[in-house]
Amino acid sequence: MTRLVTRREFLNLLGATGGTAAALKAGTALGLLPATRSAKALDLLALGSNNKKVAILGGGLSGLTVAHELGKRGYDCTVLEASHRCGGRIFTVRHGDLIDEIGNRQYCEFDDEPHMYFNAGAARIPTSHKQLLAYCKELEIELEVFVGENNNAYMQDDGSFDGKPVRANDYKTNIRGFLSEMLAKSMSAQQMDEPFTDEEAENLLGLIRSFGDLREGDLYQGSTRTGYASGGYLTHGVQKDMLAFRDLLAGPMARTAMTAYEGDYGPCLLQPKGGMDNIIAGFLRKVGEQVKYRAMVASIQVNNDGVNVAYDQDGERHQLEVDYCFNCIPTHLTVGLDHNFPGDYVKALKYVRRGEAYKAAFQAKERFWEKEDIYGGITRMNNRSSEIWYPPHGIHKEKGVVLGAYDFGGGMYHTMMSQEERIEAHLRDGEKVHPNYRNLVEKPVTIAWHRMNHMLGCAARWRRSFRTWTTEEEEMYHTLQAPVNGRHYVIGDQMSMHSAWMESAVLSAHWAMEDLDQRVRAELA
Amino acid sequence: MTRLVTRREFLNLLGATGGTAAALKAGTALGLLPATRSAKALDLLALGSNNKKVAILGGGLSGLTVAHELGKRGYDCTVLEASHRCGGRIFTVRHGDLIDEIGNRQYCEFDDEPHMYFNAGAARIPTSHKQLLAYCKELEIELEVFVGENNNAYMQDDGSFDGKPVRANDYKTNIRGFLSEMLAKSMSAQQMDEPFTDEEAENLLGLIRSFGDLREGDLYQGSTRTGYASGGYLTHGVQKDMLAFRDLLAGPMARTAMTAYEGDYGPCLLQPKGGMDNIIAGFLRKVGEQVKYRAMVASIQVNNDGVNVAYDQDGERHQLEVDYCFNCIPTHLTVGLDHNFPGDYVKALKYVRRGEAYKAAFQAKERFWEKEDIYGGITRMNNRSSEIWYPPHGIHKEKGVVLGAYDFGGGMYHTMMSQEERIEAHLRDGEKVHPNYRNLVEKPVTIAWHRMNHMLGCAARWRRSFRTWTTEEEEMYHTLQAPVNGRHYVIGDQMSMHSAWMESAVLSAHWAMEDLDQRVRAELA
Repeated sequence: MTRLVTRREFLNLLGATGGTAAALKAGTALGLLPATRSAKALDLLALGSNNKKVAILGGGLSGLTVAHELGKRGYDCTVLEASHRCGGRIFTVRHGDLIDEIGNRQYCEFDDEPHMYFNAGAARIPTSHKQLLAYCKELEIELEVFVGENNNAYMQDDGSFDGKPVRANDYKTNIRGFLSEMLAKSMSAQQMDEPFTDEEAENLLGLIRSFGDLREGDLYQGSTRTGYASGGYLTHGVQKDMLAFRDLLAGPMARTAMTAYEGDYGPCLLQPKGGMDNIIAGFLRKVGEQVKYRAMVASIQVNNDGVNVAYDQDGERHQLEVDYCFNCIPTHLTVGLDHNFPGDYVKALKYVRRGEAYKAAFQAKERFWEKEDIYGGITRMNNRSSEIWYPPHGIHKEKGVVLGAYDFGGGMYHTMMSQEERIEAHLRDGEKVHPNYRNLVEKPVTIAWHRMNHMLGCAARWRRSFRTWTTEEEEMYHTLQAPVNGRHYVIGDQMSMHSAWMESAVLSAHWAMEDLDQRVRAELA
Repeated sequence: MTRLVTRREFLNLLGATGGTAAALKAGTALGLLPATRSAKALDLLALGSNNKKVAILGGGLSGLTVAHELGKRGYDCTVLEASHRCGGRIFTVRHGDLIDEIGNRQYCEFDDEPHMYFNAGAARIPTSHKQLLAYCKELEIELEVFVGENNNAYMQDDGSFDGKPVRANDYKTNIRGFLSEMLAKSMSAQQMDEPFTDEEAENLLGLIRSFGDLREGDLYQGSTRTGYASGGYLTHGVQKDMLAFRDLLAGPMARTAMTAYEGDYGPCLLQPKGGMDNIIAGFLRKVGEQVKYRAMVASIQVNNDGVNVAYDQDGERHQLEVDYCFNCIPTHLTVGLDHNFPGDYVKALKYVRRGEAYKAAFQAKERFWEKEDIYGGITRMNNRSSEIWYPPHGIHKEKGVVLGAYDFGGGMYHTMMSQEERIEAHLRDGEKVHPNYRNLVEKPVTIAWHRMNHMLGCAARWRRSFRTWTTEEEEMYHTLQAPVNGRHYVIGDQMSMHSAWMESAVLSAHWAMEDLDQRVRAELA
């Protein structure tokens, strides 16, 4: 066995930028140090608002952000919302609510209780999403902790462990153990005399051993970190057997187990008490009177002095002449309206692909997950239902609402099913984790976002490949970022390199308003 | 480099018990599968209660559990509590509360608001603690999610990164990356032709790469899992530089980062809304009238028919003649009372060592942590203050209470300081993480549990070594588990192999009542 510490590791030792001091210096600039960053306050001139009218197309989060901020500064805003409700993909489903999926309209039959709701769209707030959190604070929206990862939840894969569900904690602890054992063996201390100091080599081995909970001889032999098989309080704890590495390696679940919620949205998640749409309710307390519901935009005509918007409401066509227009209608629907946008803008509107997403939820007759020590969190399955989410709220109440399927980007699979077929699929998948699932849940709702009325698509998908943006994608993105005649702005999470997040919707609105503000300042100068 | 897959790994592949099927079979018995385990209901005969009197010495959780359960069954219970409050080490400190540390009495000056409290003792409920959670449900104690691990919190060590605090997420992601890189290099695919199948080898390498977020050539080059240095929404996200492995290895913090909250109490934690002592309040709603406060036990005389307890209250000596006595007074205090216990019992009482624990908390004038994207969780420092806990409740309110030090088992270090010295030490330590800490916090309280009146010690420490119990320790433990004359029971988390947890206190009470029940049944038979 050759020495493992190569020149490459030696560079690692010194840090990316050529030495500890340099790395530290870089760290200062790169957010490593706890600079007290606050949500940036919008610095918009109020002066520009004199007699200025604004049309906001779509009552989603970005549109309401614009209405709220410009409203504060004296602009005369009108929000045209096509559907019967604001919020777009911020949609909390409760007793009696309509799910307006075309071809599959449903009314929700959950019990009429405050904790019996289903966040059918946006469902978690990462604590790094500062702008959104700043609005939650400003609008006095009560927040509580959301449980993303719960190691007591299960991993289930027909191809591993004979299809039996295994606790995430068992998956992770065993994988850590096996990986650590392999690592410890591959680098015994005498092989690390250089460039590690003795202390570093010792620390590294100590780290590896403790990471995997290795025993004597650097063997992994199971760990009480998975909890005890029995005992542990009044008697000795009996350690669980280790799992078979072969089963852990058999499918994709090991990777899922070890990387779920690794990332900047993982550290801690929040949710509004009582439902995500309380954020929308907060905005509507400020700008609700500016919203026209069931107002379907028909035409957008941009000229040098402003924008003429035509819309249909109550069976009549209305005209709205404004100075500025902020448009959060999905691009693929905007492009179908009557408009006079320039060719490259139209090309960019058409260029944006639209994602698909599907969710389903059940009312649970009893909180069966709590009997299995699960309070919140997500069970992951290697099937099309994919996930079961347990509510972190309403602890110990009689009933709760569980998410029974979440197919993000899953295309037509569930869409092509009847409501009955969808539900049967989720019951069958859920039974593999909770044997009595079928009898424990009732009153299903399903929602295919790409068939929702007035949306017909979920989050924008700019990139064709996972990691990189092509030059073409960049060009299209920046074309749509530039307002037509300085009058028509496309906003929404669709105008973000990180679509599908509420933070993106808010930031797109801020970006557009800041652009407008620069133009107003230039006019005044 | 030789092949890494040894016979040992081959055994791992097959699982501990000699094959997947066998492992699965074992799994069924060992809690691997989601058997619906509920909290066990106590099956106690009510018959034994006729005219039976019970003295409960100490109003901690175990004592109140006995009072509640035996009370339900018609026993006539009296709880003698030495101090002015029940709950023992379940102690929530609020505005005006007395911290009765001998030599350092304090009254808490926090603002008088529901969210301004400090759980000075028990502070988190693991969701595997079924018996305690069953009481929370029965007594209708509202629970909410507690944030244990928050990757946005910091790691700080004077010996690493020039003492600058580093986000836990940066620590973990970088360590995972470096470990994965070493592992991937040590086992290229051609070295794993046996006993791994091609698919298994591919899965393993895929797992390792994804675990560490490795790039081409199996290099770790930093990861966006730590969040972006800048951008990410409206512009491209700029990746942070990787940290220097040398700094990560320099002290004990890497190990802390990678193992904190690994374990059966990690998956998800809960707390009662408004303070841990709501659990005590719940019990007192049932048995509050049975409690005598400031009642100091002086003598315990066990005879064949019952127990005579003498106690002092309001300057007078009182006698209590009972059939049974349940004693959750700390063993090292019980041994100093007037008693007639047998010699081996006294020896065992004296044998139990008593742990030490120290906590401090501040009122924060503003919720500065939320400006740094921290909502709940724990910052870990390599100093004697050790930890800073941010409250997961009261999000976005003006103020909050932070734990500023937690020295578990830390002996006399803080104890030997004056209140002023303690506070100055915590301010100095906290400043290294939050530069303006000193000006952001006020109204400190500190609590050395081993100096608290009527306790003079924290959790029992049975074991001398970390992993194993000696024969002597076993003998002493079982001696104390056996009731004197079937009349006097020692209870409390001190009578558990997993002390310091509320679950242990509850289980010790259940165990004692079940023992009593067997005796009653035998008498009746």
